[in-house]
Amino acid sequence: MLTTRLYRDGVMDESEIPFAEISDRLADESVCLWIDITSPTQEILAELEAELGLHHLAVEDALHHHQRPKLDRYDTHLFLATYAVQLDERTGRLHSTEVTAFITPRALVTVHPPQFDISKVVHRFDADEDLAEHGVAFLLWGLLDVIVDGHFDTVQQLDGAIESLEDALFDDRPRDKEVQRRSFEIRKSLVLLRRLVLPMREVINTVMRRDVGSFDAAMSPYFQDVYDHVLRVTEWTESLRDLVSTILDTNLGIQGNRMNLVMKKVTSWAAIIAVPTAVTGFYGQNLPYPGADTLWGFWFSSALMVVLSIGLYVTFKARDWL
Amino acid sequence: MLTTRLYRDGVMDESEIPFAEISDRLADESVCLWIDITSPTQEILAELEAELGLHHLAVEDALHHHQRPKLDRYDTHLFLATYAVQLDERTGRLHSTEVTAFITPRALVTVHPPQFDISKVVHRFDADEDLAEHGVAFLLWGLLDVIVDGHFDTVQQLDGAIESLEDALFDDRPRDKEVQRRSFEIRKSLVLLRRLVLPMREVINTVMRRDVGSFDAAMSPYFQDVYDHVLRVTEWTESLRDLVSTILDTNLGIQGNRMNLVMKKVTSWAAIIAVPTAVTGFYGQNLPYPGADTLWGFWFSSALMVVLSIGLYVTFKARDWL
Amino acid sequence: MLTTRLYRDGVMDESEIPFAEISDRLADESVCLWIDITSPTQEILAELEAELGLHHLAVEDALHHHQRPKLDRYDTHLFLATYAVQLDERTGRLHSTEVTAFITPRALVTVHPPQFDISKVVHRFDADEDLAEHGVAFLLWGLLDVIVDGHFDTVQQLDGAIESLEDALFDDRPRDKEVQRRSFEIRKSLVLLRRLVLPMREVINTVMRRDVGSFDAAMSPYFQDVYDHVLRVTEWTESLRDLVSTILDTNLGIQGNRMNLVMKKVTSWAAIIAVPTAVTGFYGQNLPYPGADTLWGFWFSSALMVVLSIGLYVTFKARDWL
Amino acid sequence: MLTTRLYRDGVMDESEIPFAEISDRLADESVCLWIDITSPTQEILAELEAELGLHHLAVEDALHHHQRPKLDRYDTHLFLATYAVQLDERTGRLHSTEVTAFITPRALVTVHPPQFDISKVVHRFDADEDLAEHGVAFLLWGLLDVIVDGHFDTVQQLDGAIESLEDALFDDRPRDKEVQRRSFEIRKSLVLLRRLVLPMREVINTVMRRDVGSFDAAMSPYFQDVYDHVLRVTEWTESLRDLVSTILDTNLGIQGNRMNLVMKKVTSWAAIIAVPTAVTGFYGQNLPYPGADTLWGFWFSSALMVVLSIGLYVTFKARDWL
Amino acid sequence: MLTTRLYRDGVMDESEIPFAEISDRLADESVCLWIDITSPTQEILAELEAELGLHHLAVEDALHHHQRPKLDRYDTHLFLATYAVQLDERTGRLHSTEVTAFITPRALVTVHPPQFDISKVVHRFDADEDLAEHGVAFLLWGLLDVIVDGHFDTVQQLDGAIESLEDALFDDRPRDKEVQRRSFEIRKSLVLLRRLVLPMREVINTVMRRDVGSFDAAMSPYFQDVYDHVLRVTEWTESLRDLVSTILDTNLGIQGNRMNLVMKKVTSWAAIIAVPTAVTGFYGQNLPYPGADTLWGFWFSSALMVVLSIGLYVTFKARDWL
Repeated sequence: MLTTRLYRDGVMDESEIPFAEISDRLADESVCLWIDITSPTQEILAELEAELGLHHLAVEDALHHHQRPKLDRYDTHLFLATYAVQLDERTGRLHSTEVTAFITPRALVTVHPPQFDISKVVHRFDADEDLAEHGVAFLLWGLLDVIVDGHFDTVQQLDGAIESLEDALFDDRPRDKEVQRRSFEIRKSLVLLRRLVLPMREVINTVMRRDVGSFDAAMSPYFQDVYDHVLRVTEWTESLRDLVSTILDTNLGIQGNRMNLVMKKVTSWAAIIAVPTAVTGFYGQNLPYPGADTLWGFWFSSALMVVLSIGLYVTFKARDWL
Repeated sequence: MLTTRLYRDGVMDESEIPFAEISDRLADESVCLWIDITSPTQEILAELEAELGLHHLAVEDALHHHQRPKLDRYDTHLFLATYAVQLDERTGRLHSTEVTAFITPRALVTVHPPQFDISKVVHRFDADEDLAEHGVAFLLWGLLDVIVDGHFDTVQQLDGAIESLEDALFDDRPRDKEVQRRSFEIRKSLVLLRRLVLPMREVINTVMRRDVGSFDAAMSPYFQDVYDHVLRVTEWTESLRDLVSTILDTNLGIQGNRMNLVMKKVTSWAAIIAVPTAVTGFYGQNLPYPGADTLWGFWFSSALMVVLSIGLYVTFKARDWL
Repeated sequence: MLTTRLYRDGVMDESEIPFAEISDRLADESVCLWIDITSPTQEILAELEAELGLHHLAVEDALHHHQRPKLDRYDTHLFLATYAVQLDERTGRLHSTEVTAFITPRALVTVHPPQFDISKVVHRFDADEDLAEHGVAFLLWGLLDVIVDGHFDTVQQLDGAIESLEDALFDDRPRDKEVQRRSFEIRKSLVLLRRLVLPMREVINTVMRRDVGSFDAAMSPYFQDVYDHVLRVTEWTESLRDLVSTILDTNLGIQGNRMNLVMKKVTSWAAIIAVPTAVTGFYGQNLPYPGADTLWGFWFSSALMVVLSIGLYVTFKARDWL
Repeated sequence: MLTTRLYRDGVMDESEIPFAEISDRLADESVCLWIDITSPTQEILAELEAELGLHHLAVEDALHHHQRPKLDRYDTHLFLATYAVQLDERTGRLHSTEVTAFITPRALVTVHPPQFDISKVVHRFDADEDLAEHGVAFLLWGLLDVIVDGHFDTVQQLDGAIESLEDALFDDRPRDKEVQRRSFEIRKSLVLLRRLVLPMREVINTVMRRDVGSFDAAMSPYFQDVYDHVLRVTEWTESLRDLVSTILDTNLGIQGNRMNLVMKKVTSWAAIIAVPTAVTGFYGQNLPYPGADTLWGFWFSSALMVVLSIGLYVTFKARDWL
Repeated sequence: MLTTRLYRDGVMDESEIPFAEISDRLADESVCLWIDITSPTQEILAELEAELGLHHLAVEDALHHHQRPKLDRYDTHLFLATYAVQLDERTGRLHSTEVTAFITPRALVTVHPPQFDISKVVHRFDADEDLAEHGVAFLLWGLLDVIVDGHFDTVQQLDGAIESLEDALFDDRPRDKEVQRRSFEIRKSLVLLRRLVLPMREVINTVMRRDVGSFDAAMSPYFQDVYDHVLRVTEWTESLRDLVSTILDTNLGIQGNRMNLVMKKVTSWAAIIAVPTAVTGFYGQNLPYPGADTLWGFWFSSALMVVLSIGLYVTFKARDWL
């Protein structure tokens, strides 16, 4: 599937350009072009390679999954690989989708699987169309901004998930199994998110350093803004990692605590129950003990059991063992 | 709500300036202006943007929450985002309030929600009014100094909270639940505090590097002083993080210790109680054992129980198991 | 065993060159030579040293095992040490094989034990023969690419092993022993992998910096591609280390959890069993208790046992202790 | 309290100089002055400020406690803040005392509370009086050397404390409580020590860089020597932190081990005791079992108990459970 | 004890030179001298100081123990402090011996206690005598190479010790105590080794940077070789630290696992034993229960015990609890 947009002097001009005419349109210097390709076949990319003069390695990279954001420089163009992420709130698992882009002086070609919702990028382009005069820099900014906003939303969702984990942690009714499973999934997601977000700093840094030469200086604050978002996401991710391990540590402590409580209870009840057992054992001996086979013996034995049991119970209660 | 102050040649001159006259006053080169806006509406900020020629992105940032201190440079002004923090001593939870500022060559505009007590900043301005001749640098210093002092107070409070946690830790009467909950909250607060304090180094560093060009060199030691405070806060925060995890580790050890003690006690008492049970079991058999149905049998059985029980008790006591 | 290849003007020309003729062939400036030696004897290397004018220390290094990738510069040549790795999927253990190479302006000499499958390198040379015109840079790239691809495959296998470890972790039927043993082996392999992969960054970085001077600039994107692979492997390795320790931490928590469950069950059943014991003890006393030696006494005792046991069972079930 | 020393051309000349005459003496270029003030009042410092032309911020810093060593540069002088430390060997707690100094081209003014024993500095000055010709550099070196020597002694004491902790750790008679308390205190002291020692690297580095301009080059090896001491203290501190957490980890393992041993013992003894109980229970039944009410029944029952109990005991002993 | 060697134009010439003639020999520019002093007295060092014009601080350093490798530069010479290490395989404890050296343009003076076996250095000098023409650079290289080889051997021994620890870890017959003690000692040795090895990077780096000016360029690959060794030792040390903590973590998990197994066994056997106890208790009641005092009652009771016990045993076995 193909989406195209042609801006002439900063104004949107055309939106459905046949693939074969791309290089013709780019001959016009006042033109800036966006091409979006969903799940391209190898043939389409080969055609694109020829049409725009892309480096073979870059085109190959667009077909393979990387799991590492990067911005590669080739002689005539840049190649960008980024990852859009999405959190499955139910399981706490993170899903990532690779979004790649070829950046030439007057065209941006984005390539991605259908899981990535390109309409968000379209909306961003529409919302800030007054920036369209800055050409490819504007298009690139729009793409990066949408991707990084997605990272931001995800880290926010993870923050929420950790918050609800804390509630489960200090819940009176222990939900250990849930805490363990959820915290494991969250930590796994954070490990993956970190791997996808950390290199974005370098990516955007390169864009910003580069823009001195080729991009419009007026776009600079906008890239700075995206960079600031990336920093916030990375710092937040680090904080959350920290929090999750605090939760795991605290959980260990809580378990140990609960274990101690259970042990004390077990001991106490065992002692309380052992007393009547010992008494009835005594009175069950086939020996002429005082009160054997007499009624006062029965009352004495019963009273002994009750008094000793209650006595122990009260003692334990007072010591906070029950 | 609006607070304004106008300094002419380093002396306070006016304090209630209508919003619309701001740009007129700034036309006079001997003037330095402070404007404080509590919870501004979007309209007020739009007016401000026009009046002072601020960048749209900076004004937008003042409206959104960031959770990341920063100092952005725009062509005609700086944009500062910082966080005032406050510790709820009862729960150990940290609350943060965003304070943002626009810094132009001759004006400082601070923007914040009502939770931030601007009067502290006012008092700082009054207390050091001999520095007012340094213009905006003085105003900016006053603001930063108050914010960082707040960070310092908070880290000091957290230090106190950790101190009292230690007492709970080694208390003879185990207060595990409290220790866990408090240490969790404190560690969470430290994670957040770190996120808000660490980037302040960079913020103030930028101010200090910048001041070579535009700020009065005489303000330099004052910014250095604030910077020093920031370093102390960050180093202290790291120390406290270290201490809290030491507390958690130690707590695990103490729990294990207590568990071992309980186990030894349980075992000992179980053994002591098992002895009379075994004896009475023996004498309860329907068999013609020695002493069956005789009085000496009864005395023998009773003596056996007492002697064995006491013997075990003494043995365990000697081995420090009871 | 010796494999040789001679490229003349970027085209493969000869493949079986007698050892003694090597220096003769290299006299021709249009020639580029690859020599592969499997398990060389000290004599062969001495001959090579003389033939190509290699530094004695480099030749010695090719004979000893290092466990550290590096690229040493000598006056007339480079010396490369790298490690091919292979994961034994059954045990999770990592095996490494040292592959060393001497790089002169027009020849690449690779040296390795028989465990390293050189045919992969041969296939890479054949697959990209259009790059052969770049001479030694092409040969070096082919070698590094195969090695780093091997690293990549290994880290992918380890990722899979960790995935299956997670399943074992949350399995209802505890497989602790397996989890411990596997996670230990995986972590050990990750520690070793890290040691072999981390210095590769520096190795390839040196190649890339150096290529400005002596290698063809057109090879630059290809080395960049390998470098990118190395970064992905190192970052992935770090993530996996993180995941394995998360698994170990989680496992501790799960064990603690299981322990608590077992304790609660033990306690509950102990209580349920203690009740009939206490009742029969009571009715076993040699005392004229109500119902002694009467049928209603028997029914009463039996009913008591049943009612109390069921009562306790229901209570525990409700509290989720059983 | 005031101590003063005046060196003229590297030779001590006077030692009790009235406060008011300080600036007069300093007019002479061949003079170098040391002034030590114990617990100065605000008035004395104000006088000093005027007399020596110190910056107001520096003087204020000398009055407040910082907990962060630093060397601030002012236009006409340097301000040094350092911390002398002392370990209370009994509790393992670290006490720190702030020592501050103003360094002008020809005078060193040290300020400290009475807890700091200035006589050590005096002895250092006397011991190396042949260096006195280097003026203020010599005085500063003497001060720093004494402070850093104190750090060194403290880290050595902590090393000893950890050594004795290890003995307690592997002691046969568990001393968990002591181990926990001591290790906690030591780790706390190490956290504080680190905070006070780490910035010293920067402090002395600054002195050394600066000395190119203003200090005598011949003092350079002496500052290098102090710097080397600081490095040793910081590296040693890191090592000790590492060791203490190793001790805590090992302690957890030892506790778990002990727990397992206790559990095995409990189980074994419970089984051994359960056997006679079951046997006597059997022979206590009101049923015509074989041997009921006969003498061989008694002997059989008794033999059964003894044989089974001994059999279990031997089995457990063989399996190393007892 | 004194060992001396004099090389004239790269050839060994004399080997027993009286102490007093050292400076006379050094007057000859073609001469290069090695002096080794075992456990020097203060007097010998003072003499040396005068003879070679050494800095007083350097000579003092040779007498005191440092525990920190370093290379100090003085005006006329270098001062080197390194540590030879040795592992006591039986206890796993690391012993270190300080070896210091003064390096002048034409002499190397090594100073060490008798624990350091200088004959290894002598052998190295003899083995590579063809390098002797490079003068002091050759001597220094020989010394460093021997020291670093010792570090390498030690880390290899520690690797072996950890390997055997792993075997103990997964041994069926738990050897916890041994694992804890050994792993503690190994980790302690690693902490110390790290402290002694890490600064060696800087030491050799300084030598290599310096050699541009004063050492023969031909020695450069040899120092590079030593540097490479140092890197391998440091990286290996880090890996081993990682492995030891993995072992400790795994051990905790194994203990928890074993604990759970023991608990399940205890519970199961307790249940199996509780059943006959309950049955005999029932038949021991002084009540006219069905089968009281009849033979079928006895058979029924006995059958009940056997059937219930076996039933429970089979059930537990099937659930893997026994």
